[in-house]
Amino acid sequence: MYQLRKYHGDRVQSLTYDDGKLAFSIGIIAPGEYEFGSIKKEIFTVTHGEISAWYEGGAWTIASQGKGFEVPGHKNFKLKVEQVSAYICYYE
Amino acid sequence: MYQLRKYHGDRVQSLTYDDGKLAFSIGIIAPGEYEFGSIKKEIFTVTHGEISAWYEGGAWTIASQGKGFEVPGHKNFKLKVEQVSAYICYYE
Repeated sequence: MYQLRKYHGDRVQSLTYDDGKLAFSIGIIAPGEYEFGSIKKEIFTVTHGEISAWYEGGAWTIASQGKGFEVPGHKNFKLKVEQVSAYICYYE
Repeated sequence: MYQLRKYHGDRVQSLTYDDGKLAFSIGIIAPGEYEFGSIKKEIFTVTHGEISAWYEGGAWTIASQGKGFEVPGHKNFKLKVEQVSAYICYYE
């Protein structure tokens, strides 16, 4: 039901909940720039700090607490934070 | 810097970030009612779902997404959710 994932030397960590009906992740990003790959569409809302995001074919956007951004499925994407930040992410 | 904590048969899990200057936790609560103990004052904001909260000496309150509640330090407290919910929590 829960899964902890660690990325990029443990600097990005996420906790995913999936009960078969609802799946979402919450995560924390230490300062830095990190590359990921999406499988499904990912819908992020920033819950602490400020996150800059980019995906292949798109432009960099920046979202502060309470705001968000989306990453289409099957894309390489980057997240960048200057100060530690947190998010919640839903999958479609 | 990061610490995963599991409570109550793993049904409540939290990921804490602490760099010595800033400390906060993000967590997910599966349906149920759970008891905890605070050390510092804990300031919660609900990031998914709805959380009912109670601490010794207080009354039950309920907070939906974007809203929050506080638990004083050194208190037993309870969190209750009917559907899976998530939060971010700061310590003072």
